[in-house]
Amino acid sequence: MSAHTDRSSAVTVLGLGPMGRALATAFLEAGLRTTVWNRTPGRDADLVAKGAVSASSAEEAVAAAPLTVVCVVNYDASDAVLRQDAVTSALKGRTLVNLSADTPARSRDTAEWAGRHGIRYLDGAIMTPATTIGTDDAVFLHSGPEELYGEHRPVLAALGGTHTHLGEDPGRAAAYDIALLDIFWTAMAGYTHALAVARAEGVTGTELAPFAQGIAAILPPLFTEFAADTDAGTYSGELNPITSAASTMAHVVHASEAHGIDASLMRVIEGQARRVIARGHGTDGFTRVAEVITGR
Amino acid sequence: MSAHTDRSSAVTVLGLGPMGRALATAFLEAGLRTTVWNRTPGRDADLVAKGAVSASSAEEAVAAAPLTVVCVVNYDASDAVLRQDAVTSALKGRTLVNLSADTPARSRDTAEWAGRHGIRYLDGAIMTPATTIGTDDAVFLHSGPEELYGEHRPVLAALGGTHTHLGEDPGRAAAYDIALLDIFWTAMAGYTHALAVARAEGVTGTELAPFAQGIAAILPPLFTEFAADTDAGTYSGELNPITSAASTMAHVVHASEAHGIDASLMRVIEGQARRVIARGHGTDGFTRVAEVITGR
Repeated sequence: MSAHTDRSSAVTVLGLGPMGRALATAFLEAGLRTTVWNRTPGRDADLVAKGAVSASSAEEAVAAAPLTVVCVVNYDASDAVLRQDAVTSALKGRTLVNLSADTPARSRDTAEWAGRHGIRYLDGAIMTPATTIGTDDAVFLHSGPEELYGEHRPVLAALGGTHTHLGEDPGRAAAYDIALLDIFWTAMAGYTHALAVARAEGVTGTELAPFAQGIAAILPPLFTEFAADTDAGTYSGELNPITSAASTMAHVVHASEAHGIDASLMRVIEGQARRVIARGHGTDGFTRVAEVITGR
Repeated sequence: MSAHTDRSSAVTVLGLGPMGRALATAFLEAGLRTTVWNRTPGRDADLVAKGAVSASSAEEAVAAAPLTVVCVVNYDASDAVLRQDAVTSALKGRTLVNLSADTPARSRDTAEWAGRHGIRYLDGAIMTPATTIGTDDAVFLHSGPEELYGEHRPVLAALGGTHTHLGEDPGRAAAYDIALLDIFWTAMAGYTHALAVARAEGVTGTELAPFAQGIAAILPPLFTEFAADTDAGTYSGELNPITSAASTMAHVVHASEAHGIDASLMRVIEGQARRVIARGHGTDGFTRVAEVITGR
């Protein structure tokens, strides 16, 4: 029986933005019978040319395969597609994997809704750009019932890359996603700010970049150290007390504002450090900030 | 002539905090005649045991060598030591290297003061912790007259690691220092916040750290790309438009605040992104923020 007639090797993709299209393409290239649908029509011509089946409605798309993968802009958008009676009915007894990005609470709410309607539900997060899908560089996080994940693991493997099942709590993939996006965008914002300050000082981005890469290189061991420190609640400042950190943060603020560059980001960070110091923890490390922002 | 009697191989270290002590130790281990002084006495006993000469005043210390390295908490502290008549007089005709951390403006002001008093001046920044001094891992940035730097390069090399002369503008080392500290502390603040959010979601730091290291690993090529983008003013959002970025930032804010965790850092970043979008640049990349924070 070929992949094209084996119904268990069929998959449906709802949402044909850049990521949904990349997912559908990877499924097609793996030889899976792939049905596609997008709310705005006309996005599937090249996928159909590659062998995809174009569905005329979301319920028709869902009915075409035992597994539906939805990837839209957020859970408001996935709710708008999935929580229509015809689509919800068509999903009954089938498996839904929501790879859209949103908060852990939305994932849990969707799992609860799926459970109420007899829909088998997995939640996931895609940590890498659309260009990585189908390659070794893709990174997928999954959460939900382990057995269900195991059942669909072979089809999901067609997307390439690394797949990690993080646990049964359906919100767990989104929790990791949120934490990692937090790290990513904050680092990007810091770097963009540094580029602006450097430019004001007559230093080009190209001149700064190799040194910035040196900073990126020291982060991984510090991430391990900070994690252990925060888990243990030790917040050791032996090598770098937060009083010293706050002093260098103030230099960044002053140097930025001397050039008329908005330093509100570093002002927030310095403020967190100052709150730690004001509470009598000046010899602790910066990680003590985790307590202050949590309101402990 | 041994290093101990060759006056050109003599060096003075002012300031015996953790970094100053590490510098003095490295000079001593390289066989240089090393004179040390600290504003608060009693910090030099172990250095003297290793062969350092203890000076009873800053002017006596400065007079003992052709090269003085000062490393104190900031330029208010170095001014307090150096801008006393006796010390300023003793420095005349000698070379001063200020490795204290502060803003580029303070470095330039100190260079100007040195020039007025016939003091040969180099400014520098130490990018790595005290524990790296004397090892291959140390990173030093220097700025000021290239010839003067070349003259003292052999003695500075005793500190180990990598030394880079960035240019004649005395503020240039501090400019790089500020930009790199900006990147470092912003990344650390983002990671600490992510640890707090993860903890609230039942994910330990130790569980999150390997994935956080995956984020650190994708930064170096993005740093190169962002630098080129900002230098050229192209701000390409082809792979990741700032509208998508802002949407994921909002998820971080909501997920944090749902747990009562202060999200002001991500609120600032999302605000910068929203300003870019409001100005009609929603399809640009995040780097367009460099224009907004610079007030362009």
